Amino acid sequence: MAAKLIKGAEVAAQIREELKKEVEELKAKHNVTPGLVTILVGENPASVSYVTAKQKTSHELGFYSIQDSQPADITEAALLALIDKYNKDPKIHGILIQLPVPKHIDSNKVLLAIDPNKDVDAFHPVNVGRILIGNYVFLPCTPAGCQELINRSYGDPKGKEVVVVGRSNIVGKPMVAIMIQKLQGANATVTCVHTGTPKDKLIEHCRRADILVVAAGVPEYVQGDWIKEGCCVIDVGVNRVGISEKTGKAILKGDVHFESCAAKASYITPVPGGVGPMTITMLMKNTVMAAKAAAGLIKI
Amino acid sequence: MAAKLIKGAEVAAQIREELKKEVEELKAKHNVTPGLVTILVGENPASVSYVTAKQKTSHELGFYSIQDSQPADITEAALLALIDKYNKDPKIHGILIQLPVPKHIDSNKVLLAIDPNKDVDAFHPVNVGRILIGNYVFLPCTPAGCQELINRSYGDPKGKEVVVVGRSNIVGKPMVAIMIQKLQGANATVTCVHTGTPKDKLIEHCRRADILVVAAGVPEYVQGDWIKEGCCVIDVGVNRVGISEKTGKAILKGDVHFESCAAKASYITPVPGGVGPMTITMLMKNTVMAAKAAAGLIKI
Repeated sequence: MAAKLIKGAEVAAQIREELKKEVEELKAKHNVTPGLVTILVGENPASVSYVTAKQKTSHELGFYSIQDSQPADITEAALLALIDKYNKDPKIHGILIQLPVPKHIDSNKVLLAIDPNKDVDAFHPVNVGRILIGNYVFLPCTPAGCQELINRSYGDPKGKEVVVVGRSNIVGKPMVAIMIQKLQGANATVTCVHTGTPKDKLIEHCRRADILVVAAGVPEYVQGDWIKEGCCVIDVGVNRVGISEKTGKAILKGDVHFESCAAKASYITPVPGGVGPMTITMLMKNTVMAAKAAAGLIKI
Repeated sequence: MAAKLIKGAEVAAQIREELKKEVEELKAKHNVTPGLVTILVGENPASVSYVTAKQKTSHELGFYSIQDSQPADITEAALLALIDKYNKDPKIHGILIQLPVPKHIDSNKVLLAIDPNKDVDAFHPVNVGRILIGNYVFLPCTPAGCQELINRSYGDPKGKEVVVVGRSNIVGKPMVAIMIQKLQGANATVTCVHTGTPKDKLIEHCRRADILVVAAGVPEYVQGDWIKEGCCVIDVGVNRVGISEKTGKAILKGDVHFESCAAKASYITPVPGGVGPMTITMLMKNTVMAAKAAAGLIKI
C-alpha cells in the first residue's frame, strides 16, 4: 500500500484538544459555556448509543450539556413545544434532535422548528443557504469532517480538482457548496457526479481528481483504476455487507474499493475509522461556534 | 457563423404568454390574482427604468401591481416597517426592493426582512438553501433564465457536462445548485471554475463542456478555441467597454468572445439580447409561483 491512512480518530482527538482549550478560554475570558441539548424520542438502541456518545464528548469538553429523553408516544405538538423551550433558553446554544423520530411525528417540521442559530446539524434551509452564500457559522458535520481531514492530511485544496461522487443533501451537495467558496481550506475547482452522470463520464471525472470525495451509497463502488496516482481519497460510505463468522459483528465496507485505491492514492480514509469518528467532533465544534456567535464573538 | 442565436426576447415573450394564460386561469378557477410590489428608494435613473419595466410587464400579465416610491432619505426603520406591511398584506405575493438602496440603509438587513415566501428575487438564505436542497418554489431570476434558455434551445441538460465559469452569489453558485438537482430540466454533471482555478485547468474544463454558462465579469474572456464543437454557450456577462462614436451609446460586450465562439457552438446567446431580456420575465414567473404557493396550489 502506497497511501497514507487518514486516521479519523486521531484527527478528531486533535480537534477536540483544540476545542477544549477554546472552551476554557471562552469560560475564563467571556464567561460563556457552550450549551448543547440532545433530544432523544423513544429508545431505539442505535439512537441511544449515538446520543450517549455525544453527551460523553460534550461533557469531556466542558460543555453545559443536557440529555432530554422523551417517550416514543410524545405528541408532535409537545415535541415542538420542547424545542421552543430550548430555542428560548440562553444557556443552550445547540439543539440536536436524534433522528429518526417515530412515524407519527413529521421530522421535517421538527427540524424547521429549531432556531437556525442553534441548528448545530446545519440541516435548516437558512443554514444550507448560508453555506452556499459563503457566510456561515457552521457546516453540516459529515462534509465539515471531510474538509478537516483533507486540510489536515493532503493539505490546502485551493486550485485543486475536487470531484464529489453523490449529491445527497447530507453530504454531496453541501460538500460542493463548501469547496467552491473563496475561503481558506476550500477554493477548489469542484465537479459533482451522480446517478445522472453516464458511467464512462463518471469514471473520467474520478480519474482526473486531485481530491475525491465519495458518498455514493454503493459498497466498493470506486475502483483503483478510476483514480489518479497521488489522489486524496475520502470515503464517506458505510455499508453493511454481511456478518463476520469470526466476530459475529457486521462487516463494513466503504464506497471505495480500499485495496486497489490505497495502492495509488497519496492519502485515503479507511472504513471504519476515517470520516465516521469526525462527525461527533464537528458537532462539538458547531456548538462552540454557536456559543461564540450568540455571545457576539463572531458575526454572521 | 454556425451557431443558432438564442434570442432571449423571443423566449421571454413565449414564457410571458404562458404566464398570461396561467394568471387568467388562476383568477377564473381559484380567485387568485398574483400581487407584486416594487419598492424604489430615491430616484436613481437606472433603477427608475428597471422598476418601470417590471411594473409594465406585471400589468400586461394581469397582476395586481403596486409601485411604491419612497424618498431617498427614508430611514432604515421606516423602510423595514414598509416591508413588514407588505409581508402581512395577503394581496401581495412578491416584494421586490430595487437595489441599490442609499448608503444609510443596510441592504442586507432589508433583504433579510422580506418574508422568504414573498422574496421573488430569491436572495434570502432560506430560498438559497431551498434551491440547494432541491425543494424550492422559485429560483433567482438570472440563473433561472439561463436554465430556461438551455432547455428551450439546446434541450434537456440531463447527463450533459455543464461548466459554470464564475461563482457569484447571484449567478454562478445558484446555477451550480440548480443544475445538479435530480429534477426535470437539470440533472447534469456540473463543474464550477472560478478565479481560484488555474487558467490552463479552466480552459480544459471549458473545452469539455456540452453547456457552458459564463458569468465571469471579464469582457470577451472565453475564446473560440476554449470551446467544444457543438457546445451550447450561455453568456451572462454585460460589460460596458466604451461609447459608440456613431450612436453615443455604450458598447456592450459579454464575457464570451462572440464571433469565435459562435463559429463552433451549436447555440449561443448574444449580448445584449440573450440572458438579459429573461430576468424580468423570470421575476414574473416567481410572483405567479409565490401566489400559487400562498393559495396552497403548490407545496413547499
